[in-house]
Amino acid sequence: MDEIPPRPEFDLIERLAERVGDTAADADRVAVGIGDDGAVTVPDGATATSVDMLVEGVHFRRSTSPLRLIGRKALSVALSDIAAMGAEPGEAYVALGIPPDLDEAGCLELYGGLAEVASEAGTALAGGDVSASPVLAIAITVVGHGAAAGDFVSRAGARPGHVLVVTGELGGAAAGLLVLERPELRSSLGEEAAAALVARETDPTPRLTAGRALAAAGAAAMIDVSDGLGADAGHLATAGPAWLRIELEGLPIQPGVAELADAAGADPLDLATAGGEDYELLASLPPERISEAVAAVRPLALTVIGEVSEGSGVELRGADGGPRQPRGFDHLRRR
Amino acid sequence: MDEIPPRPEFDLIERLAERVGDTAADADRVAVGIGDDGAVTVPDGATATSVDMLVEGVHFRRSTSPLRLIGRKALSVALSDIAAMGAEPGEAYVALGIPPDLDEAGCLELYGGLAEVASEAGTALAGGDVSASPVLAIAITVVGHGAAAGDFVSRAGARPGHVLVVTGELGGAAAGLLVLERPELRSSLGEEAAAALVARETDPTPRLTAGRALAAAGAAAMIDVSDGLGADAGHLATAGPAWLRIELEGLPIQPGVAELADAAGADPLDLATAGGEDYELLASLPPERISEAVAAVRPLALTVIGEVSEGSGVELRGADGGPRQPRGFDHLRRR
Repeated sequence: MDEIPPRPEFDLIERLAERVGDTAADADRVAVGIGDDGAVTVPDGATATSVDMLVEGVHFRRSTSPLRLIGRKALSVALSDIAAMGAEPGEAYVALGIPPDLDEAGCLELYGGLAEVASEAGTALAGGDVSASPVLAIAITVVGHGAAAGDFVSRAGARPGHVLVVTGELGGAAAGLLVLERPELRSSLGEEAAAALVARETDPTPRLTAGRALAAAGAAAMIDVSDGLGADAGHLATAGPAWLRIELEGLPIQPGVAELADAAGADPLDLATAGGEDYELLASLPPERISEAVAAVRPLALTVIGEVSEGSGVELRGADGGPRQPRGFDHLRRR
Repeated sequence: MDEIPPRPEFDLIERLAERVGDTAADADRVAVGIGDDGAVTVPDGATATSVDMLVEGVHFRRSTSPLRLIGRKALSVALSDIAAMGAEPGEAYVALGIPPDLDEAGCLELYGGLAEVASEAGTALAGGDVSASPVLAIAITVVGHGAAAGDFVSRAGARPGHVLVVTGELGGAAAGLLVLERPELRSSLGEEAAAALVARETDPTPRLTAGRALAAAGAAAMIDVSDGLGADAGHLATAGPAWLRIELEGLPIQPGVAELADAAGADPLDLATAGGEDYELLASLPPERISEAVAAVRPLALTVIGEVSEGSGVELRGADGGPRQPRGFDHLRRR
């Protein structure tokens, strides 16, 4: 079937394998890496596996993101789910759909970004597949490890009396996206602050160390903040089931978000609760474990942002003590 | 980024999970299936993992393949790599790129095909991701299991003195593709024979039981015949390294292939050696294990088709004892 020439040849696979081979060769658990019918690994006891698919025009644009950053973000986003399980990152498998206008150098640049994050995160790029495709598409399967299935933290363990904690700072990715889409907003910020916000959007950090630390410190439910704090809290609330009350006044909002929101005519709380893509971790903890958890994730901040009670749902409470619905931030974006 | 509406909603994921949920709920190794940040599994000791990506217009067309068969073939092709490792099939993870003109019913039909093969093969559909996409794209990661890494059969073990064996029959998938693309060729065959050839192309069977049996019977190198016998033998030859001599006269060619080839003005040996997609297994065996291996894969046929000696390369030997290069069969297809 020849509408799209059946590119990727064996040569390309070999070159991609060379580009990322070290990440697999150094991995203790990988017995056979790229190049056979399958990669052979020896897990520790239990595995946590997650899949993320990114498609050009839906999740990224090559016109605004360099290929290296597209590769970095694809793997970081996938690894964020492993972080949210409290698992140790192990292997990643990459299925790459290569469009006609992406040459071998471009593929290698993208794999360079993948290899960087793999190396930073201690993840072996152990296999994958390549195919011709009308647009760039990247599907990544990541495998995390733990001694036993019970060591992983699901979304389902939030219980009445728990406190809700979130790592790091929120709102930065949404603010960064606005900066990218509306360059005139840059003038409201210093160049450094603008760059920091943009980096939150284009090059997120999976909170792998914090995820394992929170699991060890008693996190009973955990999720990464990818869809927005409100939506992701909703996933914990449904899985529990549990009632999650979040005090918006206490949210850790990234520096620069307030100024950017002001310039954009937005409420920083909307960016922090509805923007998503911050890839921080939201966890439910027994209150007696808070100080242990705070110490365990240091130097990353861990902020108590609410509490869990009986029921099933999410309540976002404003400074006035009244309920509040996030308005989203899509209306602020340039179409 | 809104060029393509960010379809698949949570509702669709839930419905897909319902459609395939039983395959995971019944699986001993799956502790947490679809719906959390990751699936949790407890492997037996070692895992073999393979990724296959199929893209519309490259690997299939919706105009000629029903969605159920596209789903079936996508998983079967992925599982064929697990068969070639001699692994026990475990879990599958599906990343689905959904085009604007594929509605929820279509997605469920495709997942129905996936679920059928999962059930037939004893594979749990344990997770995945969905994304909007300009064309239908399916990336499947399959995980196979074994007690230890050394139980899996790589491509690299062909040794001088071994014999080469192949399961089942060859040429049927290439012949079936010609029947699909050139309907006038149907008249050269009975309806039943034509349907059998088409089924080899559209609904291949991963040789999972035979793969495990061959591994247990001493297969030292193994690969599934996906690119064509000549090309796949080449992969074993390179990985060995080894010299593989294949006697074309002894190839097990599927009934109907000779008649179809005759009608198409082709040589059946070209369909059998260059067509690919038969998904039979090619293995290198110590000669003293042949009868054990033949008994182990029964009722599937196992045919000795050649032998291994020193070197690195593949020699296809015709009935006259002379070397022969497969001519491929692309020139026979309708563009």
